[in-house]
Amino acid sequence: MRATLMYRAGDVRVAQVPDPRLIEPTDALIIVNAACICGSDLWPYKELEPVANGRRMGHEAIGTVEAVGQEVRTLKTGQVVVMPFAYSDGTCDFCHDGLNTSCVRGGFFGVGGVADGAQAEAVRVPQADGTLFPLPVSADNALMPSLLTLSDVMGTGHHAAVSARVDRGKKVAVIGDGAVGLCGVIAARRLGAEQVIILGRHPERIALAKAFGATDVVTERGEEAVERVRKVSGGFGVHSVLECVGTEQALLTAVGIARAGGAVGRVGVPHYETIPAAQPAFYNNLTVSGGPAPVRAYMEELLPDIVEGRIQPGRVFDLVIKLDDVPNGYRAMYERKSIKVMVKP
Amino acid sequence: MRATLMYRAGDVRVAQVPDPRLIEPTDALIIVNAACICGSDLWPYKELEPVANGRRMGHEAIGTVEAVGQEVRTLKTGQVVVMPFAYSDGTCDFCHDGLNTSCVRGGFFGVGGVADGAQAEAVRVPQADGTLFPLPVSADNALMPSLLTLSDVMGTGHHAAVSARVDRGKKVAVIGDGAVGLCGVIAARRLGAEQVIILGRHPERIALAKAFGATDVVTERGEEAVERVRKVSGGFGVHSVLECVGTEQALLTAVGIARAGGAVGRVGVPHYETIPAAQPAFYNNLTVSGGPAPVRAYMEELLPDIVEGRIQPGRVFDLVIKLDDVPNGYRAMYERKSIKVMVKP
Repeated sequence: MRATLMYRAGDVRVAQVPDPRLIEPTDALIIVNAACICGSDLWPYKELEPVANGRRMGHEAIGTVEAVGQEVRTLKTGQVVVMPFAYSDGTCDFCHDGLNTSCVRGGFFGVGGVADGAQAEAVRVPQADGTLFPLPVSADNALMPSLLTLSDVMGTGHHAAVSARVDRGKKVAVIGDGAVGLCGVIAARRLGAEQVIILGRHPERIALAKAFGATDVVTERGEEAVERVRKVSGGFGVHSVLECVGTEQALLTAVGIARAGGAVGRVGVPHYETIPAAQPAFYNNLTVSGGPAPVRAYMEELLPDIVEGRIQPGRVFDLVIKLDDVPNGYRAMYERKSIKVMVKP
Repeated sequence: MRATLMYRAGDVRVAQVPDPRLIEPTDALIIVNAACICGSDLWPYKELEPVANGRRMGHEAIGTVEAVGQEVRTLKTGQVVVMPFAYSDGTCDFCHDGLNTSCVRGGFFGVGGVADGAQAEAVRVPQADGTLFPLPVSADNALMPSLLTLSDVMGTGHHAAVSARVDRGKKVAVIGDGAVGLCGVIAARRLGAEQVIILGRHPERIALAKAFGATDVVTERGEEAVERVRKVSGGFGVHSVLECVGTEQALLTAVGIARAGGAVGRVGVPHYETIPAAQPAFYNNLTVSGGPAPVRAYMEELLPDIVEGRIQPGRVFDLVIKLDDVPNGYRAMYERKSIKVMVKP
């Protein structure tokens, strides 16, 4: 089959690889109906050291179950499923607590580990029972783009909002206008936020943020952004900050705009070693939380809102390409010409 | 009157100062019945730069109301009150949310600000209505030592536990065997923790921690402490870490022993600029929270447990001195000969 391989920063190719097959009795194979390129894929696209045989890329997909191992109990061939970016057994203590990304038998797709990537024609899915989420609709349903976001960005935006303790009537700021930030806007409104300030400056993204319910836009950066957010939020800052970038500067801004007693939910893959502003964060009793989103645990809660049309996170996709065009898809996202790319093998 | 002044690191003196008087109509004057030396006073004792006229020290007291300003409505002369380490109006948005330490008209005692120190014969208390907490017992009651801890250490230990999300059945670690850490043990048990691991090595303090309900003792430090806590907590670490020291090493240990999805409540005055281990904390979805404890907001909840004898935080006091002996009290705590010193003017 064909799959996407990254050999080093900037070098992404679609190549022939051996067809995936069941290895463990808990595995399933899925044929990929739709996959994505993720903002987090841009980090290795920017800085990956050479990898001898290439890294299999992609961690978001909707697929059709092609085969299941002997111990798989809940899935059947032909089912349409969402594949979250992490696999998990669904039964360990951490899965039980809703933290599937810390599953003791779990791992991540498309990061060079034992699991393959989803930007491919098919994927072997470990721990299939705990990982795959069957959908109540057929593969040609018009909701597919939104359902596909359950594999990562919508669940990740929701995790940012939950980690930042968004609640009814709260003032919220979202740092980052990528797909996760935009889904963060949806999540914040969905959880009842009264004010949602988006920090970003790309006109199409800002327009989408507004369509998703952002009430204010702050285009400034750094200290000026902090001042501006404080001003538009009434002087004291916001209760909740969704940090959807992953840089030290973004986190510094997050701490600067959080109101005393507020919380920062960080979901941007951290490209920093320490959390800055430890003293202001302390004296303001801020909470810093977040991490890789346990999106599998959120699917059940978010699904009805998509199926019943209350949220439309699929609008983050502004480019749909074929698998062979994946290198161009990376380039489009890297150059910020596309918010998020859908790949239809 | 006599009051405690610190002129530089190591130089603490009791000296004559002008008698305090009402300045604002919202002030009260209290005659100090009992004050304390705090672990946090040891930081300036170690590193204070020279202060021309000295810094007035002390921020914990039980006193008797001597006089009240014209706008004070809830307090009467002769009432016995607890003075928390921060003053607050009790009416602003932050006080309303229970975060009195961020009161817009608030501040701290004994840190060189506009408010005086409590290691003195009397104190002027700003925002008296919102600050002072009337006690239902007389000044000679045997519970006074425990009630005195409501002014800081018991409320601070409780804040660490709340910030670390201690709950029924959870595994908890307390870093630091000072008075706050010991009160953290009380707080963790009070909130239902099943296992409470104290990290410390001073025999009398450890004995008291056990008396307060600690189930395990870890005397190791650094990486060895991390391994040991993971082992005694069943392999994955603890749900909640109470960080009651304030050093970077303590925080690093806290992140290392927290179970994925767990929380660190930091209440040790931070002597670090950044929070270390930002990436492990992220990948484990840890929450880092805490700050100056809004002890005033906790008094109502903690009082009945003291009055009805369920908790005895007053046992942290192992030395009672007269005001003139305060310099010796600082030395005893600095040399770790005393856990916590009570000052009876």
